[in-house]
Amino acid sequence: MLELRVRTTRRTEARDITEEVVRLVTGKQGSLLHLFCTHTTCGLLINEDADPDVMKDLIEAFEGLAPRNHGYAHAEGNSDAHIKSSLTGHSLTIPFSEGRLVLGTWQGIYLMEFDGPRERKIIVTLV
Amino acid sequence: MLELRVRTTRRTEARDITEEVVRLVTGKQGSLLHLFCTHTTCGLLINEDADPDVMKDLIEAFEGLAPRNHGYAHAEGNSDAHIKSSLTGHSLTIPFSEGRLVLGTWQGIYLMEFDGPRERKIIVTLV
Amino acid sequence: MLELRVRTTRRTEARDITEEVVRLVTGKQGSLLHLFCTHTTCGLLINEDADPDVMKDLIEAFEGLAPRNHGYAHAEGNSDAHIKSSLTGHSLTIPFSEGRLVLGTWQGIYLMEFDGPRERKIIVTLV
Repeated sequence: MLELRVRTTRRTEARDITEEVVRLVTGKQGSLLHLFCTHTTCGLLINEDADPDVMKDLIEAFEGLAPRNHGYAHAEGNSDAHIKSSLTGHSLTIPFSEGRLVLGTWQGIYLMEFDGPRERKIIVTLV
Repeated sequence: MLELRVRTTRRTEARDITEEVVRLVTGKQGSLLHLFCTHTTCGLLINEDADPDVMKDLIEAFEGLAPRNHGYAHAEGNSDAHIKSSLTGHSLTIPFSEGRLVLGTWQGIYLMEFDGPRERKIIVTLV
Repeated sequence: MLELRVRTTRRTEARDITEEVVRLVTGKQGSLLHLFCTHTTCGLLINEDADPDVMKDLIEAFEGLAPRNHGYAHAEGNSDAHIKSSLTGHSLTIPFSEGRLVLGTWQGIYLMEFDGPRERKIIVTLV
């Protein structure tokens, strides 16, 4: 069980963590890599890491699906972040082969921060 | 391969199953825990289990994303439940270390019932 | 690490790949099956494979959540597909027991094509 710490800088942020993950696991043994964020207002997802506009559109889409201001019951003012994190999910499982992460050409790994800025913890497991 | 049976009590319900899962797996061997519900109108997700308003807001948000009544093609009257279950997903993978489930402070495991009340089966695998 | 190639035939398509997956893995060793599509404009999900209207409703729901035309920033005209693939996710993990995939009675495995027609690659791992 390895660990990654990520400090986000804005309330909402698509933080590309691909390089940090690759650095952490390259050369290790296993056939599947599992990433798990131990929080309830951020999530993990895979998407394009070539054109930053893709993540801009994605963040805007999530804002449309769960607007920040909406008369929620939860009094902390971050219900939208809880909902968004349930739409992305809190873990990723990615193939791992010969000591290397197997991602598609356009795929990057993102920590989706929906209630930052905060320090986030990601637990990394190889099986 | 272990099994958990959960009887839900309403059509839509966020049922906290954290304690049942912990009881089932604590002390066992493995480094990842996998939960899988064998249905198509309920799902599994992780979110806050401190303030119940979080799940109230989440259920309402899902109802907004896939309203129960909407002129669906599927004639059984539960298309919204199929859609909602695809938004949550049907499985969870969670780190497991030294015989214990590794969850964040605020994280709980929920069976999201969208077409109850029913008895639901969850297959539990440790690898 | 096994591989499945799927050629989709329309821009948006719920392609049932259950049989192809079953053929590929039956008889093999492992306790969890992992499917991973190496793309950013298609996804994988589990849902009912009995009444085709379920997938018709699901596709329509996804179109409502991320409409094709919406003034997106990303200039390639497929931002909706990137968003939809983040809502479904790019991988599935399914229990595997005694050389067989463990699915519920009504569950099928779908490749959700959101920017086809294309040839799609799915990496299949058993652990």
